[in-house]
Amino acid sequence: MATDQAQDDSISDTYGEFRSRVERISSVEDAGGVLRWDQEVVMPEDGTPARAQQLSTLSSISHELLTADETGDLLEELEAADLDDEQAAVVREIRRKYERATSVPEELVAEISETTATAHPEWKQAKENDDFEAFAPTLEKLVELKREYAEHIDPDADPYEVLFADYEPYLDLETAERVLERLRDELVPLIEAIDGSSAEITTDAFSGTFDDDDQEALACDVLDSLGYDWSRGRLDTAPHPFSTGTQFDARVTTRFEPEDLLGSITSTIHEFGHANYTLGLPDEQYGTPLGQSRDLSVHESQSRLWENHVGRSRAFWDHFLPIARERFPELEAVTPEEAYESANQVSDDNLIRVEADELTYHLHIVIRFEIERALISGDLEVEDVPEAWNDKYEAYLGVRPETDAEGCLQDIHWSHGSFGYFPTYSLGSVLAAQLYAAIEADLGDFSADIRNGEFDALNGWLRENVHRHGKRYTTPELIEEATGEAFTADYFLEYVAEKYGELYDL
Amino acid sequence: MATDQAQDDSISDTYGEFRSRVERISSVEDAGGVLRWDQEVVMPEDGTPARAQQLSTLSSISHELLTADETGDLLEELEAADLDDEQAAVVREIRRKYERATSVPEELVAEISETTATAHPEWKQAKENDDFEAFAPTLEKLVELKREYAEHIDPDADPYEVLFADYEPYLDLETAERVLERLRDELVPLIEAIDGSSAEITTDAFSGTFDDDDQEALACDVLDSLGYDWSRGRLDTAPHPFSTGTQFDARVTTRFEPEDLLGSITSTIHEFGHANYTLGLPDEQYGTPLGQSRDLSVHESQSRLWENHVGRSRAFWDHFLPIARERFPELEAVTPEEAYESANQVSDDNLIRVEADELTYHLHIVIRFEIERALISGDLEVEDVPEAWNDKYEAYLGVRPETDAEGCLQDIHWSHGSFGYFPTYSLGSVLAAQLYAAIEADLGDFSADIRNGEFDALNGWLRENVHRHGKRYTTPELIEEATGEAFTADYFLEYVAEKYGELYDL
Repeated sequence: MATDQAQDDSISDTYGEFRSRVERISSVEDAGGVLRWDQEVVMPEDGTPARAQQLSTLSSISHELLTADETGDLLEELEAADLDDEQAAVVREIRRKYERATSVPEELVAEISETTATAHPEWKQAKENDDFEAFAPTLEKLVELKREYAEHIDPDADPYEVLFADYEPYLDLETAERVLERLRDELVPLIEAIDGSSAEITTDAFSGTFDDDDQEALACDVLDSLGYDWSRGRLDTAPHPFSTGTQFDARVTTRFEPEDLLGSITSTIHEFGHANYTLGLPDEQYGTPLGQSRDLSVHESQSRLWENHVGRSRAFWDHFLPIARERFPELEAVTPEEAYESANQVSDDNLIRVEADELTYHLHIVIRFEIERALISGDLEVEDVPEAWNDKYEAYLGVRPETDAEGCLQDIHWSHGSFGYFPTYSLGSVLAAQLYAAIEADLGDFSADIRNGEFDALNGWLRENVHRHGKRYTTPELIEEATGEAFTADYFLEYVAEKYGELYDL
Repeated sequence: MATDQAQDDSISDTYGEFRSRVERISSVEDAGGVLRWDQEVVMPEDGTPARAQQLSTLSSISHELLTADETGDLLEELEAADLDDEQAAVVREIRRKYERATSVPEELVAEISETTATAHPEWKQAKENDDFEAFAPTLEKLVELKREYAEHIDPDADPYEVLFADYEPYLDLETAERVLERLRDELVPLIEAIDGSSAEITTDAFSGTFDDDDQEALACDVLDSLGYDWSRGRLDTAPHPFSTGTQFDARVTTRFEPEDLLGSITSTIHEFGHANYTLGLPDEQYGTPLGQSRDLSVHESQSRLWENHVGRSRAFWDHFLPIARERFPELEAVTPEEAYESANQVSDDNLIRVEADELTYHLHIVIRFEIERALISGDLEVEDVPEAWNDKYEAYLGVRPETDAEGCLQDIHWSHGSFGYFPTYSLGSVLAAQLYAAIEADLGDFSADIRNGEFDALNGWLRENVHRHGKRYTTPELIEEATGEAFTADYFLEYVAEKYGELYDL
């Protein structure tokens, strides 16, 4: 007994030391998050040189803390010990980060970071000039560097699988691929059917010109209405809306275009979903993986659940249209049904991902996924990307980009070296539908709640079944715990078939 | 020759390593500065727990980097080498920081930091309740801890001198004391003479109620007019206005009270002076002491120069009143002379430092200086502070506080453990006058420039003679370089005698 006690105390000391180390790393990372928010939202334009130095210092400090021998020693000691579930989850998560960070040589990390730093302005320039060839050499270098990166982490694995796991560590690529293939195979005919439908839905309920300040007031109304906790958040504008922060301070950004009122409403709801997840993480676990959100697909499931299942529902417009009319009396003549239809119009002649509707969006993603997989495997050469891109747009969406600027140069991601990121957008939507079906199974139909602007039950369910767990469970475990099932595209496909079948009389 | 070359290369390598280390420490400190700006200006109210953890982590990381053996070894090696002037200045500044940081035991640093963390809300509560006794035990503890702190740094020195040097490392306390005594001895009779003067000056040119948004627009006009570089700065509001940042991003905050338009104008000019100094530091020295401002008195000289010598000058109101009238047509009937007089009224029945005029301000400082010196030396007990405070107000200003809330509890500084900070406010004003006299000697009378809103020559002089040097010179050296003389109160006393003599017909 005495020996057991002494051993427990020793483990408890070791775990305490480990936890302090982990919290320290998180604090440095979170400080970087504040600096990045500042850079995107409030920093004066010429602040970049100092900010770049501050961010690179913080990033190298957190990298050094993570990869230090002490971290490895503590991990080994704890892995050999008898830990409770929460401790074991923290050790699992840090082990994974540690392995990735220590496998890649510092010089390669530095080279990737330098290359992406210059790739970003090069991509921007190439997009402006519609000049893919100007960007091609850099893209080629990035592909090579990221292949090399993957090789260091796991020389035996498919390199794309390794890269994908940077964004989605626990969902295996095979599952992801199966889901994306199903989306492609089932959405292409659905969209074709919509295109051929003679149903006429309202598309212009929100046409007009809308004042920025009034749009901002309405964005606050959106957040108020969904129950955003202003004592732990704020709303600002940013050219590319995002959400960032911690459970104590999770901020939303949005943007206002005079002729796109609907866009600012849906973007605000989307970012609310992200921030709301962050705000549901447990306070007392701040600084450890148990107080941090699961990865990109789960995060995106939260934003898409609110944006699509709530914000694009018929009930939501019963609730929200009167609020919108307070700010914009010109909406007086619009009916909730018209608002609902306008928020759900499907259009397959759109070339731009970020402007896509709830259905065609996933074909944009599938195209990027197929192309980046082939690029990384070597089945596709960089020089052949534009043609492959355009062919796929023609095949899946029936529309062919006339320029690379509105084709394969449209997205920033590859200039960041982010190969494997795109799929998480679609996986998040698919998961949102699976979660929503589980919520309806648990709570019954709660469209009446939405109609009354009452979101407590919905949010309570998400808090209980998703948010409060942080990274306690792996993603497949979390999905299983929350929904009782493995990850599946069934619910998403059912949801869109029903919703769009009804809207377009299919 | 070959050997010399090898030695030069080796020093250059060592200096390069040292400089990287110094830049790394600065980047972490500057990241902390961004987090503090965020906390004061934009952070949601419940963000504190995470922010406190982030800030304390950054502060302990920069402390560890500074006090590491590697820093000490590099310093020793460089001090034995043949360095150029700039390198020698960087080594001198870091040596000083290193000595202070390594002399004080970590536990004492932690205890001071914990005590001040709780002292702040205690002080706030005590001030609200006008209950000095509730705060006294904490104040006593802080006095003891700071004595102990000083003892570790230099057991042979006057502990107050050691504390003062935390804020003003190179001006010796004897000089500071001599200046403050002269201020007391000469300002007390000057203020009495003003009080007894029969001259009637305008005091109400800015009476009225002024809209916040219009005040904000006017504060932007102030900054535009003085030449603030918006591509490297921004304006926000904060309950206690401050300025912070780097040469790439130096931000101003101000505040708006509906009935205090003049206060927001002068406070904006004051903070502009601070930010303008920061913006004048050399870009290429970012991250080293050569790219950092000298200490508190020099910083305050810049804010006071702009606030008082420019912003409270007769010429300034010729220039600025028309601009103010554009925002506030109700000022139409006010003349520049009336605005000037209102901005310079002296009132000795004000108990509150932050509301004081340009003359009585320094008596508020002298009182704090005398009391905190006596507290640290042990000549005054904490329990006797209220009486000593009130007696001095009666003696120097002829007015006795009726409560401790408007007496010795009014300022936050002691709750931070900041003993030795107050004098730098007055020393800054005194230095501002000395600099201004040197500028007039160099440039001639340039009130015509001010009248025309033309500040390039003035700012050019400050850039050339003060800003661009960073910490290259010690404070006395910098003053000597810029003005050709040692630090002296002569110019300040001449300036106030002439200005107020004329205003009040003395």
